[in-house]
Amino acid sequence: MYSQDVTYRDVEAAARRIAPHVHRTPVLSSEQLSRRLGGQIYFKCENFQKAGAFKSRGACNAVFRLDAGIAERGVATHSSGNHGAALARAARRRGIPAYVVMPRGAADVKRQAVAGYGATVIECEPTIQAREAAAAELVARTGATLIHPYDDPDVIAGQGTATLELAEAIAPPALVLAPVGGGGLLSGTAIVARHLWPGAKVLGAEPAGADDAARSIARGIRQHQSDPKTIADGLRGELSDRTFALIRTYVDRIVTVSEPAIVEGMRLVWQYLKIVIEPSAAVPVAALIEHPLLTDAGAALVILSGGNVDLDALRWVSAPVPARTKRRAPARSKPRARR
Amino acid sequence: MYSQDVTYRDVEAAARRIAPHVHRTPVLSSEQLSRRLGGQIYFKCENFQKAGAFKSRGACNAVFRLDAGIAERGVATHSSGNHGAALARAARRRGIPAYVVMPRGAADVKRQAVAGYGATVIECEPTIQAREAAAAELVARTGATLIHPYDDPDVIAGQGTATLELAEAIAPPALVLAPVGGGGLLSGTAIVARHLWPGAKVLGAEPAGADDAARSIARGIRQHQSDPKTIADGLRGELSDRTFALIRTYVDRIVTVSEPAIVEGMRLVWQYLKIVIEPSAAVPVAALIEHPLLTDAGAALVILSGGNVDLDALRWVSAPVPARTKRRAPARSKPRARR
Repeated sequence: MYSQDVTYRDVEAAARRIAPHVHRTPVLSSEQLSRRLGGQIYFKCENFQKAGAFKSRGACNAVFRLDAGIAERGVATHSSGNHGAALARAARRRGIPAYVVMPRGAADVKRQAVAGYGATVIECEPTIQAREAAAAELVARTGATLIHPYDDPDVIAGQGTATLELAEAIAPPALVLAPVGGGGLLSGTAIVARHLWPGAKVLGAEPAGADDAARSIARGIRQHQSDPKTIADGLRGELSDRTFALIRTYVDRIVTVSEPAIVEGMRLVWQYLKIVIEPSAAVPVAALIEHPLLTDAGAALVILSGGNVDLDALRWVSAPVPARTKRRAPARSKPRARR
Repeated sequence: MYSQDVTYRDVEAAARRIAPHVHRTPVLSSEQLSRRLGGQIYFKCENFQKAGAFKSRGACNAVFRLDAGIAERGVATHSSGNHGAALARAARRRGIPAYVVMPRGAADVKRQAVAGYGATVIECEPTIQAREAAAAELVARTGATLIHPYDDPDVIAGQGTATLELAEAIAPPALVLAPVGGGGLLSGTAIVARHLWPGAKVLGAEPAGADDAARSIARGIRQHQSDPKTIADGLRGELSDRTFALIRTYVDRIVTVSEPAIVEGMRLVWQYLKIVIEPSAAVPVAALIEHPLLTDAGAALVILSGGNVDLDALRWVSAPVPARTKRRAPARSKPRARR
């Protein structure tokens, strides 16, 4: 049933609707990085998107589609990540209230991003039950519309606009890769890619430590994700019935990747493209590192989903030393995830 | 005498000469970052330049200006930094040999960059005397032309092309900021800025821990730089007579900045622009943090000089933890330079 929920035409309509409110992001490539990974790769840079991630697309589409009478009561969500900030920004652009339920202890940088866009932050206990209860209470009290981060046709159509921008910007790729968490970006991407490039394979890349999509596809029935273990903080959620159905219909395959490959993928993009991406965005790059996807295939298109890294969690160990006596840093050789 | 060494026309000629060999780099800005620093700022992104830094401009200009008979014997330098890699790349594009003298113990990433472009790396002891002796021996033996990283009119004219690309891209800025180490970039930038925007102030930004340019301007006579102490590894050198003369003629002021401001500037650019810049590139941003340069003034143009950070010297401390139980990182709040 859900596979008819979002169509290519919906994405086209979304693109027109959100055009005044989002960036048309650049496509980058690096000869050296392509050589290193074994094939031509184009990177769609949603790290440069408004509020730092593709989420601005879906949030703007959902917010600007609301009827005026409903919109004025505001919008709400219980996402503490990029969707929360993107929804706050979209609401401010429409001039309506936004309410974002965030767990106590969420990173300051995330709270500031949401509050900086003028949203009301409601704190709750850091459990999924508490978040849903707080959001339900909020909606009952304010009449705000709950905008789900991915289980929403307007959000999915909005996310598809990133790929739509590539319609004439690149030659048809052989492979299209997007990360999969809740499945909104992958669904939107696949709907558009199927239409634009019927010959392309569309793949979702998922952390092995949060592999509900891979398990769901393998079993043919939606699986839950408990206790996700991955540095890719945007991909810890699970598919909804809607995104599962869309992915079954439009996506060729889900590939899973290890944590070291995610860190290595992030590092390669920082090093060769000179851009900042968040761990979740590195997951498709990790797929190109760990799987021989580029053999035989033509160019690959990778959707780099966002750039909101918590830089406070990086430690600079470069020391101010005189040039002439500079020595190599001791022992360590790579950025790494703490075990 | 030196102030006639390089003219605006030389930079125009350089731009035509190097156009097939370098990127026309983008200009970025961020509303949030501009607001935070107190005025509109445009960033010229030489971190996206070939070989990761503006140095490709000067190196290409110098290499492609050589007469064929001289060129075929090759080019040489004893820079272990961005100039070395840029020269190696330029030589490969012209199909001539490149020799780069590097101190033993130079970072692997730098050696790989130079060797990756096909240059011959000659190791020497890590003293300036050993480097110069090795380079002299090399030139005597091979007949290669020594291309100095900044004390060379063709190199300076090449560096000026970054600013020339902005001639019609932005409205006249009130302030132009570039980092100053040996002074090649600042000289080239100032020559062009003076011509394009006579009303603009042109400033050099320098680490307080390597402040020979500030001291030289203050005393009116060139001062040496011994024992530089700064994380900005591209700015540890000192002015030459030539760049000192050009800077006295064309630059309004040198401002010095602290190490914490350099780190903070780098962090702000990573966070808001989502691009990777090296510490040296953050020095003009640090100047905007520490000095009230933007009051009263109009827009500022900042030349972001490069993006070759040694990522191996960053430590990832983000832990793969489940979303629901994620806690704030303990204690530390900022990337910092080790004391």
